[in-house]
Amino acid sequence: MNQPSQPANVTPAADPLPSWNDGKARRAIVEFVATVTKPGSPEHIPVTERIALFDNDGTLWAEQPIFFQALFAFDRIRQLAPQHPEWKTREPFASVLRGDEKSALAGGMHALVEMAMASHAGTTTDEFATLVRDWIATARHPTTGRLYTEMVYQPMLELLAYLRMNGFKTFIVSAGGIEFMRVFSERVYGVPPEQVIGTSIRTKFELRDGEPVLVRLPEINFIDDGEGKPVGIQMHIGRRPVAAFGNADGDLPMLQWTAAGGGPRFCLYVHHTDADREWAYDRKASSFGRLDKGLDEARTRGWTIVDMKNDWRTIFA
Amino acid sequence: MNQPSQPANVTPAADPLPSWNDGKARRAIVEFVATVTKPGSPEHIPVTERIALFDNDGTLWAEQPIFFQALFAFDRIRQLAPQHPEWKTREPFASVLRGDEKSALAGGMHALVEMAMASHAGTTTDEFATLVRDWIATARHPTTGRLYTEMVYQPMLELLAYLRMNGFKTFIVSAGGIEFMRVFSERVYGVPPEQVIGTSIRTKFELRDGEPVLVRLPEINFIDDGEGKPVGIQMHIGRRPVAAFGNADGDLPMLQWTAAGGGPRFCLYVHHTDADREWAYDRKASSFGRLDKGLDEARTRGWTIVDMKNDWRTIFA
Repeated sequence: MNQPSQPANVTPAADPLPSWNDGKARRAIVEFVATVTKPGSPEHIPVTERIALFDNDGTLWAEQPIFFQALFAFDRIRQLAPQHPEWKTREPFASVLRGDEKSALAGGMHALVEMAMASHAGTTTDEFATLVRDWIATARHPTTGRLYTEMVYQPMLELLAYLRMNGFKTFIVSAGGIEFMRVFSERVYGVPPEQVIGTSIRTKFELRDGEPVLVRLPEINFIDDGEGKPVGIQMHIGRRPVAAFGNADGDLPMLQWTAAGGGPRFCLYVHHTDADREWAYDRKASSFGRLDKGLDEARTRGWTIVDMKNDWRTIFA
Repeated sequence: MNQPSQPANVTPAADPLPSWNDGKARRAIVEFVATVTKPGSPEHIPVTERIALFDNDGTLWAEQPIFFQALFAFDRIRQLAPQHPEWKTREPFASVLRGDEKSALAGGMHALVEMAMASHAGTTTDEFATLVRDWIATARHPTTGRLYTEMVYQPMLELLAYLRMNGFKTFIVSAGGIEFMRVFSERVYGVPPEQVIGTSIRTKFELRDGEPVLVRLPEINFIDDGEGKPVGIQMHIGRRPVAAFGNADGDLPMLQWTAAGGGPRFCLYVHHTDADREWAYDRKASSFGRLDKGLDEARTRGWTIVDMKNDWRTIFA
């Protein structure tokens, strides 16, 4: 499926992928969709089985200089600081409050979890959704000055719509917070909350003055990254996906799981190669969204690799 | 919504609910659907928000003399016994192997968990699905002699289809095993695996000779019962349901959670009142599917209560 023998038969007037240059990646996508949707084809996939998965950070929107959700966490910590005078002298919070986010992140996984819990727990699910909704409507990216929802990739929005037009059900499968993404996934990506899979903390049902609420607890429930992705996919979807789109080593098990199903399968890596219009990064260990083993495996197995610089006419929506 | 002022305007020729007698329950359902689907109505619910939840055991299919999945567990334990000679003298397995299922169940939660793990873990997800598929195709109910999939309620199948015809997305939310139900939910109920929420054990991603598999581990992941139901609903769906259908106290938090959302909501309890055609049970503490607090709350709040004996023309499909 990844080496189409003929160019895509798409007329410019009806082009569903106008931001994709005519190259190998675009042709592979169009060829796959044409093959599996053709009635009577031996590779035809019934509509109920057309499950397509998308990573979020670095695949549907940007992830530099750090995951956007971490910036939400920093803002939330600053907002909560008056209620936590002890944070002034306690790491990693002290670093955040001094504006030294790099030092805050240097504390490793323990510091990350502490910041995630402090910023993501302690509210009801409804209150948390409101916090994210307010933040995403106003917060701006540190270098581009754009809203974060303006840093989604136009070619990927077209791809999501193109797949749905062809009967695919599109899911997000991300290491990002499930309740964080759900606030904007339907509006921005056309992906409803019930098709978002992500990392989560535990919640607890309570009746408060007779009113049922779900309270967000400071305990990890599930980490939807790396080998957790196939686990999350099975938990939420319960059948094999037929297409998967990622950009990092954390997506590799998801792509392996997708590729291993019987019948035609499509796996694609977005490769960040455009330092002028976006960012260029891949194998460097320290980077967010490291793509190293995944790049090798994609090349070995003939998966499609998007070269952002050359394959995408437009980057941001 | 629960006290309609006029009978349902449905012509017999087009009747989508032929197994429902013309009574309060049927009228309440039809009135609710008519109201929330009417364009321009102040109580109109957009299609994306039309989320309807169904318990499984005792709501979509029977649950007596014990949950059908427990009978699967017993059969699986008997199947595995040759590989576990120690079970001959170890409870609760010894009781199962002697055919004394009542004693096996008398061991309480600890015995239940032991039997569940022995019968549900230790395979890959694909292998487990095959085991359930084979069992559900051949095993027969101890008193009726029917296949278990023949013990689904015809009126509820009609209700599922009627709601879907009116733009509702139907989900199963059950204390039963998520991977157990997914094997037959699409074929029997028209509910795809990605719309099944249930109890689960942990799984682990592994590459076996390069082939990715998910291995089912003998550890509880999530119990989707009682106060766990709203937690599971939020985890899988991420927005408030507008309709919920159950039959037991274990469904009460799901109905409370549904009722508490703003706007029109529909909550319904199936009350097992027909000892001749099915079973009659409710408040007795020892019964599977006990309905006690839920029945009181339904009456207090005016939720719809189905009297199986009088409301249902047909019971089994």
